[in-house]
Amino acid sequence: MIEQLSYGTAAETGMAFAEVVDWVRALLKEQGFGVLCEIDVAKTMQEKIGVEFRPYLILAACNPQLAHRALTAEAQLGLLLPCNVVVQSQDGKTVVSAVDATKMLGIVGNPHLREVAEDANARLRAVIDAVEKGLPPSSF
Amino acid sequence: MIEQLSYGTAAETGMAFAEVVDWVRALLKEQGFGVLCEIDVAKTMQEKIGVEFRPYLILAACNPQLAHRALTAEAQLGLLLPCNVVVQSQDGKTVVSAVDATKMLGIVGNPHLREVAEDANARLRAVIDAVEKGLPPSSF
Repeated sequence: MIEQLSYGTAAETGMAFAEVVDWVRALLKEQGFGVLCEIDVAKTMQEKIGVEFRPYLILAACNPQLAHRALTAEAQLGLLLPCNVVVQSQDGKTVVSAVDATKMLGIVGNPHLREVAEDANARLRAVIDAVEKGLPPSSF
Repeated sequence: MIEQLSYGTAAETGMAFAEVVDWVRALLKEQGFGVLCEIDVAKTMQEKIGVEFRPYLILAACNPQLAHRALTAEAQLGLLLPCNVVVQSQDGKTVVSAVDATKMLGIVGNPHLREVAEDANARLRAVIDAVEKGLPPSSF
């Protein structure tokens, strides 16, 4: 079942964390997103403040065509880019979530961003749907 | 003059882009933010879609204590982290902007995030103020 958050969507799977990370990377690629950076939250917490945290990875996903359209419409939009996808361990499951780009870009109040945000959302939603249904990416 | 956006604040300087990037990195450090990743938008646009773009750098800034408090209050908050600071060339000036964490985390609707968002905002605002006033970081 897909969980609807006010700021994104999430799906869970019984697959192991590392396996899901590879799967999500491939699904994102299939949807035209490159992962521009990955933030290993558990490692960062451990190194910076000595705190244990569950496996938690932020994938900063960017579709260059969409990003270019968005930045052309709104010069400061880099403040809200790229689109994050999170893979985390929760209660023995691996949970994958994606930000709601429409909601996030909605705080800008620029109507020219609506179409590009909806396009990004459709692609992110396809990733979450694939996780929920256990579908492999066709290129996997 | 500080420009107030619906989703952040911005200040401009006559200093060169590369110099400002170093300055902003040092100002962020002084405010307790580590830069977890940097996205060179111009380079990415050139490499991925062959499009020229002005110098434009996204610095993904994370204060680990604040991030830990935020993630403890809201499991999926990695979708909206870290806080972005942008350095870009615009009309012969270098413009530095920082996201409004209160606005961004506001879409979550979790009252436990308010204090941590306000704390992040005060620190980000100090960076933008320093750029606007031309102040060096004390550790610079």
